[in-house]
Amino acid sequence: MNKIQVCFSPQLFPLFNDQKSIVVVVDVLRATSVICVCFANGAKSIIPVETLEEALEWKAKGYLAAGERNGVQQKGFDFGNSPFSYVGNNIKGKEIVLSTTNGTQAIHAAKKAHKVVIGAFLNISALAHWLDNQGKDVIILCAGWKNKFNLEDSLFAGALANILISAGNFKTDCDSTLAAVLLYENAAKDIYGFLEQSSHRKRLAHLKLEKDIRYCLNTDKTDVIPIFQLDRLVAYGGE
Amino acid sequence: MNKIQVCFSPQLFPLFNDQKSIVVVVDVLRATSVICVCFANGAKSIIPVETLEEALEWKAKGYLAAGERNGVQQKGFDFGNSPFSYVGNNIKGKEIVLSTTNGTQAIHAAKKAHKVVIGAFLNISALAHWLDNQGKDVIILCAGWKNKFNLEDSLFAGALANILISAGNFKTDCDSTLAAVLLYENAAKDIYGFLEQSSHRKRLAHLKLEKDIRYCLNTDKTDVIPIFQLDRLVAYGGE
Repeated sequence: MNKIQVCFSPQLFPLFNDQKSIVVVVDVLRATSVICVCFANGAKSIIPVETLEEALEWKAKGYLAAGERNGVQQKGFDFGNSPFSYVGNNIKGKEIVLSTTNGTQAIHAAKKAHKVVIGAFLNISALAHWLDNQGKDVIILCAGWKNKFNLEDSLFAGALANILISAGNFKTDCDSTLAAVLLYENAAKDIYGFLEQSSHRKRLAHLKLEKDIRYCLNTDKTDVIPIFQLDRLVAYGGE
Repeated sequence: MNKIQVCFSPQLFPLFNDQKSIVVVVDVLRATSVICVCFANGAKSIIPVETLEEALEWKAKGYLAAGERNGVQQKGFDFGNSPFSYVGNNIKGKEIVLSTTNGTQAIHAAKKAHKVVIGAFLNISALAHWLDNQGKDVIILCAGWKNKFNLEDSLFAGALANILISAGNFKTDCDSTLAAVLLYENAAKDIYGFLEQSSHRKRLAHLKLEKDIRYCLNTDKTDVIPIFQLDRLVAYGGE
């Protein structure tokens, strides 16, 4: 049996990192959903960076650059953080540098781990299947909101943990995993409705991003598994 | 309307501390329950310290000393962390120095806040009533387990938030409060049974502390509100 744990904040990740687990980074609204969409649409790689300045340095070297803070695309960038921007020939075969409020920070918190992959509802079944075949312990790292707990990432963690535990090869002795699974069980019938109260959904609704939210809560739009190698994410499966 | 927030780990408390909220520190199993029992049984003050060494220095000056790590009373101490030890003339009028695995660490994380009080199921109604009359924002700080999320403190946070929000003077825009309230609603009918899966209950059961657990999950055994002043806790109400 392998072990599954959930970490609710990038700031707490050092308490979990054991250098042998696979770490699944999740920022459902919207960075890790966007990353899945990029690879589903044929991007070659995504370079997650912590600061907007660093992203602009890559852009000056010829990379496409995406920069978002607090839900809003930043000045001087080719893209923000909407899954609907990353389509067609803009993306195919391209290398994109990405800096967001929470998601890319979480990837950096995790990058010293044994192995880092990207999770979202958009790739949840393919990811669960892949994790089930690895024979390794799993830590789901929720990006949260500026290092605080958030509902949507915790729900995803609960959904993924639920699949893995039900399949029979994983168990947990971790209270945050038990709590995440219970939250997911309460929300499963209507995740969009459940998140109505959540702080980040309110934040994005205010920015008229309801369409993005609905899209990011879809399951299984792609089989791709973005995996971190050296300094960038590449696609493990799918196209 | 006042605001209520829940912080799931002492390590994350600096993200919440605004120097004007009242902070409720909770470590249901068992430190904050023990603190309530001490004051209910007439203790004069409790001095929470971070290290066992520091606690022994106070003992050398004539104080009673309680020292616990990982559920077990430590060598050289008058008490461990069981509510059943703090009774009768041992306690009445006494000053006690206390160092535990999680609870006293959480009190130290919180001590730079505007005001710090102690919460447990044992004093929940009196505490809620008192908080409702203060006209201040509230942060419930869960001690957790070595800075990780735990179920029993989160449940208490949900129970307390539920009372305050239902009474009409508090609202929340904090996802961790929403999650804590939902966990509590799922567990309310049988908190003891709900915690059966929890990691710390398993830890204490292994140490044959089921009787302590059952006692700490009782509500309203006392009206006392332990409050932090300078370097120690004193009783605000009750006896």
